[in-house]
Amino acid sequence: MKVRAKKTTASVAAVPPDGPVIYDSTLRDGAQALGITFSQAGKIRFAHLLDEFGVPYLEGGFAGSNERDMQFFRDAARERFSQIRLVAFGATRRVGGRCKDDPLVQALLRAGTPAAAIYGKCWKLHVRDVLRTSEAENLDMVSETVEYLRDRGLEVVFDAEHFFDGYKDDPAYALAVLRRARDAGASALALCDTNGGTLPEDVFAIVSKVREDLAGAMLGIHAHNDCGLAVANSLAAFRAGARMVQGCMNGYGERAGNANLTTIVPALQLKLRAPVTTPERLAGLRSLSLAVDDLVNQRPDPRAPFVGEAAFSHKAGAHVSGVRRNPASFEHVPPESVGNERHVVLSELSGASNVLYRLKQAGAGAADLSRDEVKRIVGELKAREAEGYSFESADASFRILVQKALRAHRPFFELEGFRVIVEKRGGSEPCLSEATVKIRVGDHAEITAGESVNGPVDALDKALRKALSQFYPEIAKIVLTDFRVRILDPKEATGATTRVLIESTDGERRWGTVGVSPNLIEAAWQALLDSVEYKLLGSARAPERPSRRRAR
Amino acid sequence: MKVRAKKTTASVAAVPPDGPVIYDSTLRDGAQALGITFSQAGKIRFAHLLDEFGVPYLEGGFAGSNERDMQFFRDAARERFSQIRLVAFGATRRVGGRCKDDPLVQALLRAGTPAAAIYGKCWKLHVRDVLRTSEAENLDMVSETVEYLRDRGLEVVFDAEHFFDGYKDDPAYALAVLRRARDAGASALALCDTNGGTLPEDVFAIVSKVREDLAGAMLGIHAHNDCGLAVANSLAAFRAGARMVQGCMNGYGERAGNANLTTIVPALQLKLRAPVTTPERLAGLRSLSLAVDDLVNQRPDPRAPFVGEAAFSHKAGAHVSGVRRNPASFEHVPPESVGNERHVVLSELSGASNVLYRLKQAGAGAADLSRDEVKRIVGELKAREAEGYSFESADASFRILVQKALRAHRPFFELEGFRVIVEKRGGSEPCLSEATVKIRVGDHAEITAGESVNGPVDALDKALRKALSQFYPEIAKIVLTDFRVRILDPKEATGATTRVLIESTDGERRWGTVGVSPNLIEAAWQALLDSVEYKLLGSARAPERPSRRRAR
Repeated sequence: MKVRAKKTTASVAAVPPDGPVIYDSTLRDGAQALGITFSQAGKIRFAHLLDEFGVPYLEGGFAGSNERDMQFFRDAARERFSQIRLVAFGATRRVGGRCKDDPLVQALLRAGTPAAAIYGKCWKLHVRDVLRTSEAENLDMVSETVEYLRDRGLEVVFDAEHFFDGYKDDPAYALAVLRRARDAGASALALCDTNGGTLPEDVFAIVSKVREDLAGAMLGIHAHNDCGLAVANSLAAFRAGARMVQGCMNGYGERAGNANLTTIVPALQLKLRAPVTTPERLAGLRSLSLAVDDLVNQRPDPRAPFVGEAAFSHKAGAHVSGVRRNPASFEHVPPESVGNERHVVLSELSGASNVLYRLKQAGAGAADLSRDEVKRIVGELKAREAEGYSFESADASFRILVQKALRAHRPFFELEGFRVIVEKRGGSEPCLSEATVKIRVGDHAEITAGESVNGPVDALDKALRKALSQFYPEIAKIVLTDFRVRILDPKEATGATTRVLIESTDGERRWGTVGVSPNLIEAAWQALLDSVEYKLLGSARAPERPSRRRAR
Repeated sequence: MKVRAKKTTASVAAVPPDGPVIYDSTLRDGAQALGITFSQAGKIRFAHLLDEFGVPYLEGGFAGSNERDMQFFRDAARERFSQIRLVAFGATRRVGGRCKDDPLVQALLRAGTPAAAIYGKCWKLHVRDVLRTSEAENLDMVSETVEYLRDRGLEVVFDAEHFFDGYKDDPAYALAVLRRARDAGASALALCDTNGGTLPEDVFAIVSKVREDLAGAMLGIHAHNDCGLAVANSLAAFRAGARMVQGCMNGYGERAGNANLTTIVPALQLKLRAPVTTPERLAGLRSLSLAVDDLVNQRPDPRAPFVGEAAFSHKAGAHVSGVRRNPASFEHVPPESVGNERHVVLSELSGASNVLYRLKQAGAGAADLSRDEVKRIVGELKAREAEGYSFESADASFRILVQKALRAHRPFFELEGFRVIVEKRGGSEPCLSEATVKIRVGDHAEITAGESVNGPVDALDKALRKALSQFYPEIAKIVLTDFRVRILDPKEATGATTRVLIESTDGERRWGTVGVSPNLIEAAWQALLDSVEYKLLGSARAPERPSRRRAR
């Protein structure tokens, strides 16, 4: 994501008075899903991606439910965002308790975010069977908690859990709950279809009714996809007057997932003409979607609306010729508007615009390149992507690829070989790893070794740095900050192609690199090499003569 | 598919007079998608699956477009179906031509199916820019082709291509096209949202208008998912009076896919109370969905509404305790109604209640366990999770953990040690991996080796099986079907903790195992060992005496 937010203090107020207000819950409700786990660094990266895209609210976790979520709030407080507002999620106080003694309510204060979201019950079935308390006490729980947090300076979003089921059961009680939250000072009332079973026509009718009965409150919608209707329900609620749209990136979430913001955002902006962000940022949507999948190691859904790899693919035949005669004849929106591209089998230039976009993003002057040079880069890129490489979060490897395609690449060293040994003695002893690396810089050969209890890649990294730092002392500054492994065709099991993504920093810049091979060690090695080369490219100069030689 | 269709001759007429009529296009429109390819035998199997489920119409292919589709029609004609009606897909005659000379129209006759579907243009933009003919000629093409096929005894479904875009552009012309098709004898007029860009409220409004203006014709809907709205659009059209609902199993289709019948069918039957099939057959829906994925070698989407593996999973503590108190509190339909089941996910959020539920599901009599034993299991589980283990998709490792916590675990062999060597010579040579494994079974020691170009884990897997198969020949049946790697705290980069998940099968059952270590090789090794142990647990018996000994 190179789409930079302007450095303003623009707040939510900058959103048009009746436009949509996007509220992302990926780090909280999305992370409830099977297999969706963010690292702590990944959460911070995610927050910046959404900030740059122009999302106004980010729910960062469930305050007090676990230490990792609290750590995120502490870490995020030290980051600089251009406009995103962090929200800590929690619940109304316990039955019969008091806010000042309630551990979850207190955790919301400790989170230190400017806003809190609390969920409360609206469905009498839940008040009776799950809370096991009286209807009156539930109302008090809502108003007391909202007021308590408001009094302590927090903006409060009230998540009306099971609102639609509750409304169908008893509209008066469901509305009474909302009214208490509004009167206690909640800034938004998010109507939740918690079980995902409500139909769009019912969402539209109920939101319209609520809007009539509850003047003055900003309404929101929180939909789940259990009937494949989360996007439709979110749009129906927006049309009926709910401005805040809650959802998760790529539709992550428990069960069938939450409302998919990567679908809803372009649907709002391009189909309903209700702008969520600038057209320039919207053109970063596909990159954003891929980057998020990458953070949680999910395989991107090729059929995802708008952002999926196949979303604008046309088979050879009627559609292709139709689309060439008039794109509107077979495309409901221009693929470029969401940073996607038309895939047509015939067109060898189909990737050029994407590459130009990426070159521009990477800061390389695309304007200086000839048609032929662009074509060569596209060709190289397509070939690598076919092998399984992905450059979405490997900007440094992409730069090196461009250099190579333009034949402007000068290797800083040559690899003569490496060997890694992993050994385990006895069932309970830890594994030991040992790596030997042999490189050549000009006339000088160097063989070094490294060892590690952390595995073969760590040993290899140590040996490689030791070998290179003789010639390039600046290598010592590189720290690897992220290491991700993705199996590309898991059905091949241990013989599957593996992609390794590495993120490095030298304290000033950060860069990502990628390697692909059926052999994980080899894939990691490629990514390590690219990382080192990228660093050396930045400080490009002749190698130093090694001060001393070691041969082991 | 265990749901057997009754051997009746029930025809389409058996459908209630205003109920939905499902029209499956998986073999035609679904197979347009990249990566969706049915074998000829697979198509026949597919037709039987849908026949047994109770689908009335099956579009089998594009007649005349390729020989494989024609072969399917010939093959299918020899099969006995209980009620499904086969449809051959084609187009109106060519501009300025005659039906009797038109190769595609003639192919529809040769297909020998009882019904044909032909698509025709309704959008003037297409008539002008794609067909490049007059509006009058396009009308003639529609009516002549429908009439020609009707006269020869075929039922004709008219697919009104781009109907909604055409209607928005010029309602009178779009309606004129439908009227011609109806008057020429088409049995159904399917309104197609070919580009997938129409919103549900527009679908509802336009279908309602068409229904007013075109009495006597059965209307249908054919939606695409480009805005994530195909299900909503199909349901909106049905509510507005379109009875025929076209779509594809599992949402296969070009771009973002066709309307997903595995979502629409239960939504119609369970949510709109518009029965598509019997409750007994609906309970076979998840099996059907998995069987279809299997036929085209697609990974099932765990988040698919109704039928996905995660569709009824609960992870959050509050949801788990809620669902145990009253399933309706967190489930919009009973999972059994579509042949799915409730999954309680073990995670950092889980407590004893999740574990007990999970034990019960796994067939381990939780009732037999003492309070102390449950406590021991929960304690062990929490300790493992804190180290980075995750048992969400590692049921086999969970079973082994329970065995160990109950001190009921008996190891099948002991590891004396292993060694893996990965070597690369020169920058462009591939890596070679070599593994040595030494185990002991009772008094017998075995040392074996394996090698691979696919990396160290593959080499280790080969060596381990070779060593063990001397004692436990059933090991040979295990096939690894999935291999996933996750770096748990990527900030630690190459020193980060690594989680490896493996899925195995012996052709009958599938099981998942997990390993965790800073060393990836060690983590993979643990998962491999658990996989083997789980298999041996299932066939628990004494080891064989090795027939021959190898020492390398």
